[in-house]
Amino acid sequence: MGTHLFKTERVTSFPGNEIVKEILILINCKVYREGVGRRADVIAQAAQQVAEESGVTIAIAPTFTDIHRISRHFEIPVYAQHIDAVMPGAFTGHVTAEVVKFAGAVGTLLNHSERRMTLADIEVAVRAAKEHQLNTVVCTNNDATTAAAAVFSPTYLAVEPPELIGGKISVSEADPGIIERSLAAAKRVNPSVEVLAGAGIHSGTCVRTALDLGTRGVLLASSVVKADDPVRVLQDLVSKL
Amino acid sequence: MGTHLFKTERVTSFPGNEIVKEILILINCKVYREGVGRRADVIAQAAQQVAEESGVTIAIAPTFTDIHRISRHFEIPVYAQHIDAVMPGAFTGHVTAEVVKFAGAVGTLLNHSERRMTLADIEVAVRAAKEHQLNTVVCTNNDATTAAAAVFSPTYLAVEPPELIGGKISVSEADPGIIERSLAAAKRVNPSVEVLAGAGIHSGTCVRTALDLGTRGVLLASSVVKADDPVRVLQDLVSKL
Amino acid sequence: MGTHLFKTERVTSFPGNEIVKEILILINCKVYREGVGRRADVIAQAAQQVAEESGVTIAIAPTFTDIHRISRHFEIPVYAQHIDAVMPGAFTGHVTAEVVKFAGAVGTLLNHSERRMTLADIEVAVRAAKEHQLNTVVCTNNDATTAAAAVFSPTYLAVEPPELIGGKISVSEADPGIIERSLAAAKRVNPSVEVLAGAGIHSGTCVRTALDLGTRGVLLASSVVKADDPVRVLQDLVSKL
Amino acid sequence: MGTHLFKTERVTSFPGNEIVKEILILINCKVYREGVGRRADVIAQAAQQVAEESGVTIAIAPTFTDIHRISRHFEIPVYAQHIDAVMPGAFTGHVTAEVVKFAGAVGTLLNHSERRMTLADIEVAVRAAKEHQLNTVVCTNNDATTAAAAVFSPTYLAVEPPELIGGKISVSEADPGIIERSLAAAKRVNPSVEVLAGAGIHSGTCVRTALDLGTRGVLLASSVVKADDPVRVLQDLVSKL
Repeated sequence: MGTHLFKTERVTSFPGNEIVKEILILINCKVYREGVGRRADVIAQAAQQVAEESGVTIAIAPTFTDIHRISRHFEIPVYAQHIDAVMPGAFTGHVTAEVVKFAGAVGTLLNHSERRMTLADIEVAVRAAKEHQLNTVVCTNNDATTAAAAVFSPTYLAVEPPELIGGKISVSEADPGIIERSLAAAKRVNPSVEVLAGAGIHSGTCVRTALDLGTRGVLLASSVVKADDPVRVLQDLVSKL
Repeated sequence: MGTHLFKTERVTSFPGNEIVKEILILINCKVYREGVGRRADVIAQAAQQVAEESGVTIAIAPTFTDIHRISRHFEIPVYAQHIDAVMPGAFTGHVTAEVVKFAGAVGTLLNHSERRMTLADIEVAVRAAKEHQLNTVVCTNNDATTAAAAVFSPTYLAVEPPELIGGKISVSEADPGIIERSLAAAKRVNPSVEVLAGAGIHSGTCVRTALDLGTRGVLLASSVVKADDPVRVLQDLVSKL
Repeated sequence: MGTHLFKTERVTSFPGNEIVKEILILINCKVYREGVGRRADVIAQAAQQVAEESGVTIAIAPTFTDIHRISRHFEIPVYAQHIDAVMPGAFTGHVTAEVVKFAGAVGTLLNHSERRMTLADIEVAVRAAKEHQLNTVVCTNNDATTAAAAVFSPTYLAVEPPELIGGKISVSEADPGIIERSLAAAKRVNPSVEVLAGAGIHSGTCVRTALDLGTRGVLLASSVVKADDPVRVLQDLVSKL
Repeated sequence: MGTHLFKTERVTSFPGNEIVKEILILINCKVYREGVGRRADVIAQAAQQVAEESGVTIAIAPTFTDIHRISRHFEIPVYAQHIDAVMPGAFTGHVTAEVVKFAGAVGTLLNHSERRMTLADIEVAVRAAKEHQLNTVVCTNNDATTAAAAVFSPTYLAVEPPELIGGKISVSEADPGIIERSLAAAKRVNPSVEVLAGAGIHSGTCVRTALDLGTRGVLLASSVVKADDPVRVLQDLVSKL
């Protein structure tokens, strides 16, 4: 995967217990026309440039068919957008932990609002991902589902109120309470789990607010993927870290 | 609903804190030929008779179209087998909390292994059920998913290892550990939640073992529904309480 | 089921071959708050009254839990909103042809846009319905899917462009071409199949136009179910027959 | 894509109308451990070698993440195992015609028994594939569903009785009638459609029988993918052409 650049900061809420943590900016390319094929390369290139400039970890979740190419050509962490809860076998058209790992992914999104999974399948998929040393970012929609998914000890929980996804208002502006409640609920169930803020993140202020609320980073999509100048948007996103 | 008969027993594991709890025997009729239509009435009649004889709460989960008739004609609690995570509206072919409540149900199964739900939908459906004063029995397959579902505070969690469903070996015989681990995991997340044992329960000994492991009852199907003499089977099931 | 009243008209497109055909007005109650429980009875009562006044067959598709009650208390044909492609057996929360038949249904909707089915499941469900002497109304969205479903010889195909469902503009007004093309495509594949017009039907003029386009009737929902006075709306719907 | 080698034969059933047709051997790698990553390369290499030796078109359908690499490194046609019925946009974890085309695929399987699609989605996906000049192989399970899918004019229909998939008995041995009936039913609906035989194909005799029944080739998986020596198995498969 090349160099895993990251920037550290002190955990202000646990002053006596200064943990070094990695902040993650994760770009979900979905299957936006502006996020697949050659255009995915453009976004990966922008992410790599801004990661190098800033020292912040910027990862990309391209469509399945782009994972192999992007992980070979760029020095940024690559995530899958989804894996199915199946083991290797007769599952035509499915995606396993094994194949995204082989393709070069270091992690995977799971249970995105556009690809919801059953409770049983989330548990199996998180387990399969861990067996292949893949990070897991389990998406959830409110404090209750965030706490429930925290039981499975994913690497990150990404809280995305569905009504804000793809919009111009970030979750940290529109409903900071949902982040705070979700974080608190998740930590009660599993103190070691970390939360990303999703939905509507589009500026350095959004990112700063999300971190100040206790998250470890953000999951975003259209604001970077559809940008005329992804480098500039990413530079803004990391500007207040 | 008529009289809700029940039998009490002391919670032996918390000797200083004697809670009266209701033991529940819940019969899932599925859409077995032997469990629908007139035959559902036979099972409901058997359940009512044995409930009256024994003082144990025996409930039935008939197919949707039988809920209204059975809840009108029999003095036993009736559960739906599933509700969808939708509110009243344009959802052709879906089932809401509202309609099963109107039909006479006092509760609903959710997330049965034959009708798995997404994490987000389980949360919504439990909430909708509570708003309509319906009990919820959320089915799960192992300790992790049981603990996750416990976050939603359903009335009961029914632990059913899928490989034992419909078989002749009960979970309490085959894998008592899964019940114990699930119960412990669920109580850690939510001390007030109660667990039922599912899968393969077919005798009074199975039920006794399930209760001794700390559960509040059992969820069963074929052993009663497919019985030549459901009264006799039910009498055996409650014989060691 | 009581009397199956119907009104006949000559098939104008086949002048030498005068077939008596039944016109069907089918009311889909969905799970609208205004279409379930006691309110479903109100709609069934209205349908029965207008059917008796007009001689037109007006059928109702209530939610599953209302089928039994409505088919016992009213003299109109009752349809299920959906059946699953499963045989009697271990299918918790599913609905079979057998159980809706037992509950009193004379037919079922299939593949509604709010409850799409796989190609394989539509074929199985139509077959299961026929084995139980249930009519089938397979919903489709354009000429190609209408023709494909025609292969299974359902009783009716209901063409419903999804973008018009629930709206105030009927398919016969907004896009009569889709009805004509679908009818032609379906007849090429299976000359004996009949088509209903769905989506947005709200007046006698819509119904008249739909029949003039060659359909045998209409599938509608909100215009009747959400009406303050369902009798008056139904009287208008049949006023130009 | 390199050279598209193919072998022709006369259409014996239409003696006056000698059409040159391409025979297709299509290998579905599923997500078998023996069919992904480096092992997919081994199979692709074997397919390329035997295609060159024999002049028969041998294509491969690898897992999504392998499409790009295999289409770049081998001179055989590459198919996707599935595409979703979505257009470019906010569909995390989905696969579009656009992205598999960009990755180098020349076609896609659709509606495999392990990845069934709704009727509406099959129609959309076939249309999307055509817009991207992708071949389509729509899998079906019996004569009725084969005829229904024929309406959409896919490049091929692959008839696979589910009970034979993955087994040692080929459809051409176990139930030649299903191939004949499906072919006849499909041709009645759409004379220009072509059929592949699926399920259990494992020898040159199976392939020969399938062609003699009127198909244009075979869709197979485990017999090649799990073979110790894929070259030898493929050589046998094409030995009677």
